Amino acid sequence: MSLQCPFPRAGRRMRNGTLLYAQSGGVTAVINATAAAVIEQARAKGIKVLAARNGILGALREELIDTSKESAAAIRALAHTPGGAFGSCRVKLKSLDADRARYDRLLEVLRAHDVRWFLYNGGNDSADTALKVSQLAKASGYDLTCIGVPKTIDNDLAVTDTCPGFGSAAKYTAVSVREAALDVAAMAETSTRVFIYEAMGRHAGWLAAAAGLAGNGDDEAPHIILLPERAYDEAAFLAKVKAVVERVGYCVVVASEGIATADGRFVADAGGGKDSFGHSQLGGVAAHLAGRVKDQLGLKVHWALPDYLQRSARHLASRTDWEQAQAVGKAAVQLALKGQNGVMPVIVRSSDAPYRWKIEAAPLSKIANHEKKMPAGFIRRDGFGITARARAYLSPLIKGEAPLPYGADGLPKYVTLKNVAVKQKLPPFEG
Amino acid sequence: MSLQCPFPRAGRRMRNGTLLYAQSGGVTAVINATAAAVIEQARAKGIKVLAARNGILGALREELIDTSKESAAAIRALAHTPGGAFGSCRVKLKSLDADRARYDRLLEVLRAHDVRWFLYNGGNDSADTALKVSQLAKASGYDLTCIGVPKTIDNDLAVTDTCPGFGSAAKYTAVSVREAALDVAAMAETSTRVFIYEAMGRHAGWLAAAAGLAGNGDDEAPHIILLPERAYDEAAFLAKVKAVVERVGYCVVVASEGIATADGRFVADAGGGKDSFGHSQLGGVAAHLAGRVKDQLGLKVHWALPDYLQRSARHLASRTDWEQAQAVGKAAVQLALKGQNGVMPVIVRSSDAPYRWKIEAAPLSKIANHEKKMPAGFIRRDGFGITARARAYLSPLIKGEAPLPYGADGLPKYVTLKNVAVKQKLPPFEG
Repeated sequence: MSLQCPFPRAGRRMRNGTLLYAQSGGVTAVINATAAAVIEQARAKGIKVLAARNGILGALREELIDTSKESAAAIRALAHTPGGAFGSCRVKLKSLDADRARYDRLLEVLRAHDVRWFLYNGGNDSADTALKVSQLAKASGYDLTCIGVPKTIDNDLAVTDTCPGFGSAAKYTAVSVREAALDVAAMAETSTRVFIYEAMGRHAGWLAAAAGLAGNGDDEAPHIILLPERAYDEAAFLAKVKAVVERVGYCVVVASEGIATADGRFVADAGGGKDSFGHSQLGGVAAHLAGRVKDQLGLKVHWALPDYLQRSARHLASRTDWEQAQAVGKAAVQLALKGQNGVMPVIVRSSDAPYRWKIEAAPLSKIANHEKKMPAGFIRRDGFGITARARAYLSPLIKGEAPLPYGADGLPKYVTLKNVAVKQKLPPFEG
Repeated sequence: MSLQCPFPRAGRRMRNGTLLYAQSGGVTAVINATAAAVIEQARAKGIKVLAARNGILGALREELIDTSKESAAAIRALAHTPGGAFGSCRVKLKSLDADRARYDRLLEVLRAHDVRWFLYNGGNDSADTALKVSQLAKASGYDLTCIGVPKTIDNDLAVTDTCPGFGSAAKYTAVSVREAALDVAAMAETSTRVFIYEAMGRHAGWLAAAAGLAGNGDDEAPHIILLPERAYDEAAFLAKVKAVVERVGYCVVVASEGIATADGRFVADAGGGKDSFGHSQLGGVAAHLAGRVKDQLGLKVHWALPDYLQRSARHLASRTDWEQAQAVGKAAVQLALKGQNGVMPVIVRSSDAPYRWKIEAAPLSKIANHEKKMPAGFIRRDGFGITARARAYLSPLIKGEAPLPYGADGLPKYVTLKNVAVKQKLPPFEG
């Protein structure tokens, strides 16, 4: 016989209003850690959290997910699962005037679900969207606090010391390049002499620069780093490859996908095409460089294009990055509850070694549509490597190994959420 | 005041004769673990170990390394360092008659350094070289025991259950594909619909097949695996991609670099060329497939080419593989000291779950120049995936995480050996 309590279990009293969280742009190894922190912090404050399916698209389509259906254990596991658990998107809203219908619909959805806090987790374009939504709320008189939450492996957001997602991709890059370099060093006598690794980074070379942490000094790999901040000069590049191979026996090159010649042509622009953000669709830099090395220098060459592996490698995430990803999520909820509309929690560094940082709020207007490139003082005079200053900046970001449970099957224990849909209240929207 | 012992410290008495160890062919994440086990086991038996620089080349050139100059700690660190610490090579000796001068020189070098045990650590071609050296020793009357030691990420050696190096590359493949698939799943609504991962494997699809461990069932990634054991049929491939995208929303493809059409043309044969083993120089399968998907299906596509990353990723090594790599090294020394000329220590499986295995000696004649492809029963009837039998075989090989110390800098603590050269006793050899 079992005794049942006649009273329903007293839950934490929910505050009025809902918090809506959405992921935007390219996902990272730790964006879900931010999501987990948002949900956990909101739960602790008695706030209901909905997540938009596929970023702003879900908010427009009223495709919302009820995160209260997920167990505490699932949300904790979310903190070590890569990808974007609720789906992300590459959709950029235009100005308030140009995209009026979509902004109106967004407000309608927010009202329908009593959303009072909107957290938009993304990069430059997403900060811009968050800024516009924050202005829209003010203009329309609807009581909404909109917060941008930083995320991008490109590390190109202004104001913040670094961007959650970057440190882990940087660690992946440095470790992968060091490992591959050991391989090439062992084989160079009779096989590959030149190895080229292509790193993501459309306009800013942060990730390629991070490969510089794999070694130090002229003879340690990577021997050449090609950054989009400097014009690509084929003759100088080939001369450098030749000199390194003659001196060291082999040459490891790390090239940013975004390198361009002095007249502005992307080296990768064989395929052409544009992505839905209107950016050039890149890829193929390493293959191109490899072809030139083979044809012009006659050296055996291999290349690697890790592509999405570099931004989803949670198995190699930086502990520093993972902690920051959670810290910005927690802070975003706190700022939202304080009604700090139109801001982003950013990371502020007070010391390189030991690395000391804290979270502060910065206005989205200072972040949206800015793009932080590598400072000139981070790039070696010859343009082919990083300086001690860059090293001092980058080093702390890859420190520590983020904990990750593995299953008996030898694979990381990544969680799949239930993602239970919230019942729709509005007619469908086509926009 | 300190007291000094008037007698030199009594060291372990060295046995007469030297053991020569050499690494051959493409290196792996754990070949140095085999090297460490060889050196440790030989030290325990009081045997001096020399290592050839760059495999058989060093043996021919009399470029030998004195491993006794390395500390016990350095050798233990070697066990978790990827690459090939003494250098490897892609050089295949021909028959005894055709390459007489080189075999004679080899014997001369072995005699000059009193080498009585020669351990050659490599794949198919290396087993062939080891077999010939074992025959040469017998024919010439020089007292030499030659042992082949297995290694290859291709997993294509006959007799042995698996090849050290494969399990770690397999784990890298399965984890990377699972992680990238989470990325693609999150972005597919507005971005990449098809993701193609190119795995190594010239003629055997073991590594591509291992990607199948990343998921299970029709809707889990990888949705399509292209194996060299089956003819590549573009129309069937594109139809399958289309169907998966329509059903799941996105499609993750894993393609072996060695896939070929029914008439035997390698899909990657755009560049052409041969490596120094006389094999076709491959690469570019993923890029080709991506182009076809884009042009024929009009879907946004990304691809990854991990290249050397997949065989040097010690940070993701399988504990099973790491233990086997050390076990074959230890056994090789034991077999050598027993005078078992012309054998290879192989892994024998007695049970799938739990995985039970032991080391036995197998004649090199049964291994050299054989190539173990995937059995037909491991490949799904439609040719696009693996069966339950393949899963039962592959699963144990990626189990467990091989321990790896990280430094305060956030990078794995890989060792660089001193590699002190042994004084040469012979005139130079040009061959």
